[in-house]
Amino acid sequence: MREPEYLRDVNGFVRRELLGREAQLDSLAEAPLPLYDRFAETGLMNWWLPKEHGGLGLSLEESVRIVAALAYGDAGVAFTLFIPVLTTSMVAWYGSETLKEQFLPRLVAGNGFAATLGSEHEAGSELARIGTTVRRDGDWLVLDGAKAFSTDTGFAQFLVVIARSADDPDQYLAVLVPRETSGVTVEKRWDVIGLRSSATYQVALRGCRVPAGNALHGHGLRLLEIGLNASRILIAATGLGIARRIRDLCMDYGKTKSVRGAPLASNAIFAGRLGQFEMQIDVMANQCLAAAREYDEVAARPDAAEEFMRQGALKSALTAKMFCGQAGWQIAAAASEMFGGVGYTHESIIGKLVRDMRYVSIVEGGDDVLRDLVYSRYVVPVSKRS
Amino acid sequence: MREPEYLRDVNGFVRRELLGREAQLDSLAEAPLPLYDRFAETGLMNWWLPKEHGGLGLSLEESVRIVAALAYGDAGVAFTLFIPVLTTSMVAWYGSETLKEQFLPRLVAGNGFAATLGSEHEAGSELARIGTTVRRDGDWLVLDGAKAFSTDTGFAQFLVVIARSADDPDQYLAVLVPRETSGVTVEKRWDVIGLRSSATYQVALRGCRVPAGNALHGHGLRLLEIGLNASRILIAATGLGIARRIRDLCMDYGKTKSVRGAPLASNAIFAGRLGQFEMQIDVMANQCLAAAREYDEVAARPDAAEEFMRQGALKSALTAKMFCGQAGWQIAAAASEMFGGVGYTHESIIGKLVRDMRYVSIVEGGDDVLRDLVYSRYVVPVSKRS
Amino acid sequence: MREPEYLRDVNGFVRRELLGREAQLDSLAEAPLPLYDRFAETGLMNWWLPKEHGGLGLSLEESVRIVAALAYGDAGVAFTLFIPVLTTSMVAWYGSETLKEQFLPRLVAGNGFAATLGSEHEAGSELARIGTTVRRDGDWLVLDGAKAFSTDTGFAQFLVVIARSADDPDQYLAVLVPRETSGVTVEKRWDVIGLRSSATYQVALRGCRVPAGNALHGHGLRLLEIGLNASRILIAATGLGIARRIRDLCMDYGKTKSVRGAPLASNAIFAGRLGQFEMQIDVMANQCLAAAREYDEVAARPDAAEEFMRQGALKSALTAKMFCGQAGWQIAAAASEMFGGVGYTHESIIGKLVRDMRYVSIVEGGDDVLRDLVYSRYVVPVSKRS
Amino acid sequence: MREPEYLRDVNGFVRRELLGREAQLDSLAEAPLPLYDRFAETGLMNWWLPKEHGGLGLSLEESVRIVAALAYGDAGVAFTLFIPVLTTSMVAWYGSETLKEQFLPRLVAGNGFAATLGSEHEAGSELARIGTTVRRDGDWLVLDGAKAFSTDTGFAQFLVVIARSADDPDQYLAVLVPRETSGVTVEKRWDVIGLRSSATYQVALRGCRVPAGNALHGHGLRLLEIGLNASRILIAATGLGIARRIRDLCMDYGKTKSVRGAPLASNAIFAGRLGQFEMQIDVMANQCLAAAREYDEVAARPDAAEEFMRQGALKSALTAKMFCGQAGWQIAAAASEMFGGVGYTHESIIGKLVRDMRYVSIVEGGDDVLRDLVYSRYVVPVSKRS
Repeated sequence: MREPEYLRDVNGFVRRELLGREAQLDSLAEAPLPLYDRFAETGLMNWWLPKEHGGLGLSLEESVRIVAALAYGDAGVAFTLFIPVLTTSMVAWYGSETLKEQFLPRLVAGNGFAATLGSEHEAGSELARIGTTVRRDGDWLVLDGAKAFSTDTGFAQFLVVIARSADDPDQYLAVLVPRETSGVTVEKRWDVIGLRSSATYQVALRGCRVPAGNALHGHGLRLLEIGLNASRILIAATGLGIARRIRDLCMDYGKTKSVRGAPLASNAIFAGRLGQFEMQIDVMANQCLAAAREYDEVAARPDAAEEFMRQGALKSALTAKMFCGQAGWQIAAAASEMFGGVGYTHESIIGKLVRDMRYVSIVEGGDDVLRDLVYSRYVVPVSKRS
Repeated sequence: MREPEYLRDVNGFVRRELLGREAQLDSLAEAPLPLYDRFAETGLMNWWLPKEHGGLGLSLEESVRIVAALAYGDAGVAFTLFIPVLTTSMVAWYGSETLKEQFLPRLVAGNGFAATLGSEHEAGSELARIGTTVRRDGDWLVLDGAKAFSTDTGFAQFLVVIARSADDPDQYLAVLVPRETSGVTVEKRWDVIGLRSSATYQVALRGCRVPAGNALHGHGLRLLEIGLNASRILIAATGLGIARRIRDLCMDYGKTKSVRGAPLASNAIFAGRLGQFEMQIDVMANQCLAAAREYDEVAARPDAAEEFMRQGALKSALTAKMFCGQAGWQIAAAASEMFGGVGYTHESIIGKLVRDMRYVSIVEGGDDVLRDLVYSRYVVPVSKRS
Repeated sequence: MREPEYLRDVNGFVRRELLGREAQLDSLAEAPLPLYDRFAETGLMNWWLPKEHGGLGLSLEESVRIVAALAYGDAGVAFTLFIPVLTTSMVAWYGSETLKEQFLPRLVAGNGFAATLGSEHEAGSELARIGTTVRRDGDWLVLDGAKAFSTDTGFAQFLVVIARSADDPDQYLAVLVPRETSGVTVEKRWDVIGLRSSATYQVALRGCRVPAGNALHGHGLRLLEIGLNASRILIAATGLGIARRIRDLCMDYGKTKSVRGAPLASNAIFAGRLGQFEMQIDVMANQCLAAAREYDEVAARPDAAEEFMRQGALKSALTAKMFCGQAGWQIAAAASEMFGGVGYTHESIIGKLVRDMRYVSIVEGGDDVLRDLVYSRYVVPVSKRS
Repeated sequence: MREPEYLRDVNGFVRRELLGREAQLDSLAEAPLPLYDRFAETGLMNWWLPKEHGGLGLSLEESVRIVAALAYGDAGVAFTLFIPVLTTSMVAWYGSETLKEQFLPRLVAGNGFAATLGSEHEAGSELARIGTTVRRDGDWLVLDGAKAFSTDTGFAQFLVVIARSADDPDQYLAVLVPRETSGVTVEKRWDVIGLRSSATYQVALRGCRVPAGNALHGHGLRLLEIGLNASRILIAATGLGIARRIRDLCMDYGKTKSVRGAPLASNAIFAGRLGQFEMQIDVMANQCLAAAREYDEVAARPDAAEEFMRQGALKSALTAKMFCGQAGWQIAAAASEMFGGVGYTHESIIGKLVRDMRYVSIVEGGDDVLRDLVYSRYVVPVSKRS
């Protein structure tokens, strides 16, 4: 199969800008904004944004290929570049026409970022317990609270904040907040153990005031759940990209390393392990693609917004993230033993790849949370079982 | 998605003939031929046979659905019904027109079976070491040898025998041998630990004489490898069907069993385990379907026979079998601990399901063999990596 | 280290009576009582019974060695022979002197069996929910109920029944009931999936009347918990014996099977797998011995009965059973893939060994139950952590 | 059991100097020599050194307890403090009396360090392929070569260098080289991924000249194998200490973190996971102790040096390291998913503990190497099987 042009561009970027720069990317230096400018030069920034708002309108299936290719180079860069999809998909389906016109074309034009502020420290995975509030004040909404983990916020054009209604504790809103809104303060950047080229922030919201029309339509937690469909599938795709990188790293090592007078690559145990990796990678790829196709099918429906509202978390988005996190971790853990003593030093990038891989099973819902969700939504109702 | 008619028929057969009859199916009684007559009444016998020979021409993707549904009822019945595909696909692609006309329509008409005789005791997984020979005698081929594991041979219409050329030790042939050929002797039926409704035989060939035109075109071992593509994917699909049955068995148990005053089904550990099963089942299904689609794509090409000859063992056929065997076994092993003491008795069918599941990782190449094959064919050549 | 005499006798019995008779032992034929007569000829029957009652007084450490050696031959025979320890240890520590004098020497003299009736169908692992009752009637106790899984009852001299007080629902008793007591009915022998040379029964108790002095001292459920210490450690030792048998079976196969022109035993993947087995077996052995020594230390104290009452389930008894069940299963599962097609037939005993191994993680508390017990008793209290 | 005094001192040191200083210990700052001075104040420096040379003569069983306690605080500190045992045990058994008198009492007096220079870059785990040479020059030995991974060399009093004879390529020597010998150059300190408070160096040897009497008696590779017995068991004990720290970290988190209105510590899945951890920790502890006792038994023999020469790598030293590495990694990997998003940041020390744990399976022989060793030494010879 011929490589499509968008993928050729991505692979070019990866080769030029990422491969060989792992130490820098792993250093938690300043968020590498010039790097993203160079990605923008490919014309692919925010590649998924709908054509009606000036975007390229690439599908989630295409996104899986792009993200896996980026993550082959660096998972933190991949995450930084695709995570705005969580925000923009909520806006594109549940924002008013005015709101979309105001923010999406500008995002395209400016090659900008968008961020979602969902999780909070106390609430953990129980988003219904979040403490950030939104209250109505005439034609305005006022937000107050503290958000724990929010990627890209530091340099985003706009945010979507998930907040509980100050008036009705059972109601939650998703509200678009321009980044420059007074009262939005980035309190710190987290010192993360992997994905260190990405930037995730602790953010305070103090009396942030936005027009009432900035609230998206629908229950805030449900909207977040819907937005997570795309990002969970792309997190899974990150795991796929890292796994491929690990495999190739092993193969490069296997060709140069000699054991008992023969290249390691001709050793039966090595071969068996790589054969197992390849099998898992093949299954990861097929699962990511199957999940993306399910998503694209819903997204292509004229009633996509309503259908997503009915379905909430897509099963395949949950299973793709769970599976790629688990299989990816098995690969990373097995590989991390294959490089001898050098693999325990920073001369090898295997340590970085293990730490990067870890995020797949942690970010946007740990496996315990997702297993429970799969069970209650897709096993208990007999007709939903696979 | 509406269930297609062929699947409705299969599910009806499963409900009527298989569910609830596990003890009988697990008894290693006579091969249940009347049962297969009743399957034939659905009109689906040998459902994959090409239309040009009078068959239904269902695709391998459809076959995956059929086999998973059958295996939900009983994996031995499923295996018995689909394993002729290994034989017929070799004949359909590499037999002469005359040979196909002679045997395939008759198979359709008679709702018959076909069997392949490949593996031998000494050779194990190294088929190049087989001892069965074929020698030319004028217009005839004469076969001699002993074949270890051959399913359906006892009641097949015709066989394909893999044999080494008596004249040229590097040459191997795949030869169609009518079952009634003089010198074909079923020596015993194996007392297998699972899949006990199926029938696998030890077979002796003593001076079996067939016309020279019964040899299929191409190197015998390569032909076998090609034939195994379909059957390996369908073995994987059997694992999928068994896994679904295990999940439903657990759920039925979880609803009736009470723990600490609440149904087991509402227990968090139970939920987590079933959520994990469902994830794995979803991935198994997607992997089987992806492999089947890859197969169907090649099969739909005008040069399918040549293309299969070039590709040999399809990667996705190997990875589907490996993955479904491994994930299926994890599900079976975990489930076998979930039923308390009753699960250690034949009052529960979990013991049967564990034994049935085991075959996925054993039959048609153990994982060590397949890992090695994946490595040498699809990892070492950089361009073939997933 | 020289093999002690008792172990030489056991190994002789195993060689003479068990090895090579797996098909018979796996057949669920009549409980092989003549076999046990032959074991009695070694003088080792009920080897753990205290010297003051005429027994040999072998320690639990010695018991671990005996049971592992027996289980190497057949786990069902091992289980049948050691499981009376559960019953007799409760009697020896918590029975009145009269009761002990009445029953224990006779057990020694008659080379007899004893059985415990604890678990019930409805209650499952929650023994507090058992429905069997005991009521006081003058100087008598009257027992009524149905017991699910009771090994050796069919041919035991006496039983200990765990029952709830009919008068006080929070009180439970452990009552010694002679097997011939009127109202004790063996309703069926379970058709188990492994350990098929052992005999486990469903038993009904209908108005069984025994003297009030037959009640053991102490809370019935606590007594059962204490009794399970020895039997859980010996169940773990069964797993050890089976694991050793599997290893040796693999090695025998590895020496005769040829792969690519060399014995399988010289194959790197085979070597790695057996090296891993051996490591696990070594750890299993050390864990069984450590648990037995902890038990023997308590048992050697003058206040052993009180100390066991204080401690209840010993941590190392729980961890030995959990660990040997898990490691043993990993070995069994891995080995069951190593014999090719023959390993899927009854020509190999690997199928039997896998089924036998399964019981270690099921009988006397599944891992979920034991993990919970370890957690609440030995992790939550900081001082009890390992 | 009362805590012995030496353990109380170690635990005091851990509390005072290590707990709460993880960020500093993880920073790869200068090797923390003042910290080791403070450890020396406990009087326990080089606790294993024989009494005849002025040491405390603590056993390896006691060493296991000390190392596990130290590693609870910081595995890098533990490794730094115990790794000299590899060097000193070779010297104590195979050095001349003169050599011992010259170096061991001074080590005791100076609270000093000793280091072994074994592994080399090219040779990897195949030590027979090392390129460092030693040649005889009159009464002197001259060493040349490059050694890859050598811990403590930077601040050691003396080294033992494993070298190939320049005259006889089949002969290997272990030679004691005072650290200040001309030609010993520390070329770099490795930037390791874990154990970052320890210091491992790349060292060059250029014409290092020592008296011929500095050669230890016996084949150099065999001596190294013998020396590794103690250090491998103590590496295993490091894994035990880290595992206990992880467990307690989880429990602390479980008590403060609330899920669905209850502490996480009362959640069934959490309890099950911690119950599993505790089981594994208990087995790790028993295996370390069993290995240490086997070692101490040999070491207590009058012919200990000869007996070690006969046995080489003790089985239990190999199995303890393998097992603790595997079980420890399972615990670390499972735990690293239990802290939500915070667990992916350096606010939690779980990331450090995962990286520290990884070394157990890498340093002093990866599992592939050890499995192979266990197989050839302890499975192939029937009488050596566990």
